[in-house]
Amino acid sequence: MFESAELGHKVDKASWERQVPKLRADLLDAQYDVGELKKFPVIILINGVDGAGKGETVNLLNAWMDPRHIQTHAFPPPSDEERERPYMWRFWRALPPQGKIGILFGNWYTDPIVDRVMKRTRNSDLDQSLEEINRFEQMLADEGALIVKFWFHLSREAQRKRLKALEKDKDTRWRVTRADWEHFRIYDKFVAVSSRALRHTSTGVAPWIVVEGADERYRSLTVAKILLDAMKKRVAREKRGERRAVVSAPPPPPLGGRDLIGALDMTLALPQKRFAGELEKYQGRLNLLSRHPEFRQRSLVVVFEGSDAAGKGGCIRRVTGALDARHYGIVPVAAPSEEERAQPYLWRFWRHVPRRGRVAIFDRSWYGRVLVERVEGFAAEADWMRAYAEINDFEDQLVRHGAVVVKFWLAITADEQLKRFREREKTRFKRFKITGEDWRNRKKWDAYRHAVCDMIDRTSTEIAPWTLVEANDKYHARIKVLRTLCDRLQAALGA
Amino acid sequence: MFESAELGHKVDKASWERQVPKLRADLLDAQYDVGELKKFPVIILINGVDGAGKGETVNLLNAWMDPRHIQTHAFPPPSDEERERPYMWRFWRALPPQGKIGILFGNWYTDPIVDRVMKRTRNSDLDQSLEEINRFEQMLADEGALIVKFWFHLSREAQRKRLKALEKDKDTRWRVTRADWEHFRIYDKFVAVSSRALRHTSTGVAPWIVVEGADERYRSLTVAKILLDAMKKRVAREKRGERRAVVSAPPPPPLGGRDLIGALDMTLALPQKRFAGELEKYQGRLNLLSRHPEFRQRSLVVVFEGSDAAGKGGCIRRVTGALDARHYGIVPVAAPSEEERAQPYLWRFWRHVPRRGRVAIFDRSWYGRVLVERVEGFAAEADWMRAYAEINDFEDQLVRHGAVVVKFWLAITADEQLKRFREREKTRFKRFKITGEDWRNRKKWDAYRHAVCDMIDRTSTEIAPWTLVEANDKYHARIKVLRTLCDRLQAALGA
Repeated sequence: MFESAELGHKVDKASWERQVPKLRADLLDAQYDVGELKKFPVIILINGVDGAGKGETVNLLNAWMDPRHIQTHAFPPPSDEERERPYMWRFWRALPPQGKIGILFGNWYTDPIVDRVMKRTRNSDLDQSLEEINRFEQMLADEGALIVKFWFHLSREAQRKRLKALEKDKDTRWRVTRADWEHFRIYDKFVAVSSRALRHTSTGVAPWIVVEGADERYRSLTVAKILLDAMKKRVAREKRGERRAVVSAPPPPPLGGRDLIGALDMTLALPQKRFAGELEKYQGRLNLLSRHPEFRQRSLVVVFEGSDAAGKGGCIRRVTGALDARHYGIVPVAAPSEEERAQPYLWRFWRHVPRRGRVAIFDRSWYGRVLVERVEGFAAEADWMRAYAEINDFEDQLVRHGAVVVKFWLAITADEQLKRFREREKTRFKRFKITGEDWRNRKKWDAYRHAVCDMIDRTSTEIAPWTLVEANDKYHARIKVLRTLCDRLQAALGA
Repeated sequence: MFESAELGHKVDKASWERQVPKLRADLLDAQYDVGELKKFPVIILINGVDGAGKGETVNLLNAWMDPRHIQTHAFPPPSDEERERPYMWRFWRALPPQGKIGILFGNWYTDPIVDRVMKRTRNSDLDQSLEEINRFEQMLADEGALIVKFWFHLSREAQRKRLKALEKDKDTRWRVTRADWEHFRIYDKFVAVSSRALRHTSTGVAPWIVVEGADERYRSLTVAKILLDAMKKRVAREKRGERRAVVSAPPPPPLGGRDLIGALDMTLALPQKRFAGELEKYQGRLNLLSRHPEFRQRSLVVVFEGSDAAGKGGCIRRVTGALDARHYGIVPVAAPSEEERAQPYLWRFWRHVPRRGRVAIFDRSWYGRVLVERVEGFAAEADWMRAYAEINDFEDQLVRHGAVVVKFWLAITADEQLKRFREREKTRFKRFKITGEDWRNRKKWDAYRHAVCDMIDRTSTEIAPWTLVEANDKYHARIKVLRTLCDRLQAALGA
């Protein structure tokens, strides 16, 4: 959930100064369009960790737009008036009317998350609150509201550095209170609970947008652009007379071009002479784990996704090499059959959910919905946008039933892919592996990359995280895959 | 939830024989249209109490349509294969493909309800299962499925009679097992849990249709007509190219014209000479209850709905006459103001949610959404269809916060209304009470009546039931209102 927001996104001063004037003018225009249409309210939720720029963003939005048409609400501990009514009462009072923008700084998410962090509630209570929130937001969307939910994030290290820096400077020392350090001590717990909350409430009509909060220029531009984009798309929809409660539009790619794929160290490699030894070691460990008595009550679901020619097949063979052939199945996923097309898209994957004690290896998977189907336009935007939540639901069911879900994205660089394509064309026994489609996909490299990053942002959950594998070097890739599988299984089995 | 299904609906043999041939032909046609289009599956859920005709209905549907294109699934206790995979796995396997009809006899609702009845789970577990079901059904609808959920109901008494009758006849005695009587003993618990389940899962995309099971002809015709209607409307939508996951179409009015309003004994009256004494008695009781120490932690929300001139005002005055003026507020609800129209429709009612220790009396209410807005076309079908679930959610929040929610429908006959309208026109100080609109509404009497019955079917819940008040006689009506308020408050306060 938060991986993309720990990349150290930055925007330099020059591009900030170049972009701001137009952005502010566009934002104002969009705000006036919303006000003139008077067909829908804009509800902006501001949440996230301390010190990640929540307050500053509220101020910025008020400064860059016309504050007379913005209603900003913060929610201190509830008054008597509020406590004596149902929890949602105070938030209903704060809803902006059609044509206006409401910024809710702290909102219906705050108490459910904080109560859980403080152990005043259990996970089941949290989940129930989140379901109620989902219904509430669905209702708001059905009633026409445009909902934009920002989650501001800072990595643990960035958080620590921020507090240290403030303390060091005698002019800002006063800003660091005991409470700040106390909050910092529960950072991990807070992030874990938040991750669960975001997973449950990133719906098609109101997905979360996680913003890295460390760099003010990046944060401000990102928020402003996403908000502008959302308002413009929605105004256009209204003008076309489209029915409401359509799912939210996908956010644009990150500013400055820094993304999860770009953050990988693609030079990582393992010398060939060390490979055999490592392979033996991890295959042995994996074999033992798969025969662990505890595993009889569990199962293992492994997903391989990656660019064409990234080496999925090679990795899969090294995994299966460690397993008893009676205990695993490989599910190669190509275009759906006619039978499969006549069913909900998850149907063909449910068919292959493994029994207890078994391993299912998916060579491509349900993520096709948000990769190839998105990029090639096989699925409508509304359909792939809701798929993230549906996929999280699916994996949640697997995990609750005892499955260990391990997902790999095998990344190679464009150059490396080209090299491999050419090799395949030259080698006769590999020629079947390269088709015109591979060359066509290559032309959409950027669109795929954007889709991959969105996918990881929205489906790398605390229960089923993604592992990104630097796969320019096959030896490194294969060992990283095996090691990850061993680590995840070992943790799950308590072995 | 089940009131309408305890009215003793019947269809006589003559009209059965008149209707069946055409109905069967139409059903077959609709089935072939679905099959030819091959754009969506039809998923029929069959649930309900024992002996209410579930099995017979499954047989009937197979007999009346082409069984080659119907997949019928029953779900016995799960096999090893099934137990070793997540709960939903077996149901995914049973989903019909596009163009086909799937009848799921016993399904994803069965275990959550039975487990709760048997006390193997708690309410919070049940609610979580129901939320998961809602997400699953929403996904199915988003993927294009037409979902028709039938709940077959028999009153406790009808259930008892059925078992007795079977036992008496030596040819059928064998059909009554010990398990049948054991099930009968938990009838109340089963109905209470089912009521909760139906309330949580009657969504816009997949509302429950409760069918009275006692009379075979009524039951069969009702199921067939509702299914036919749903398939025809959906085929028409597909042909118009409308986007999926629109909410389900409302069901037609009940066969034979027997409905909740018709079942009222409109001759009920209280002699004027007894009225004063009864009034004093119940006003005194209500006053005491409103000053009960427990009430300081609770609140009272009273909803008055009813036909024009049904005497809401008179009832309200008798209620407020018993209360301390500092502790109640009357909320007269007319057409929404401009401010209110710029908000979700529930917003203006949230404003008036009472504090603890207070009473809020709504003279008309949020039910306008599914009454006047439905009948007059002020709200789109999709919007008022989803309102039932939203209203149940709203009242659930009130009740969980300690409010006692009491809802009255004041019913008068058309003749009585006419008499009152004429009187109002004659009496100078009452003339303001009668407008052209009242006369216009009268012309839509049947449409309103249908809307009222739907409303009660879908929003009379175990936490906030409707009370229907026979209001041709004002004295009777006022005392019934007061007595109901006293009884509900007394039960809630444990006074």
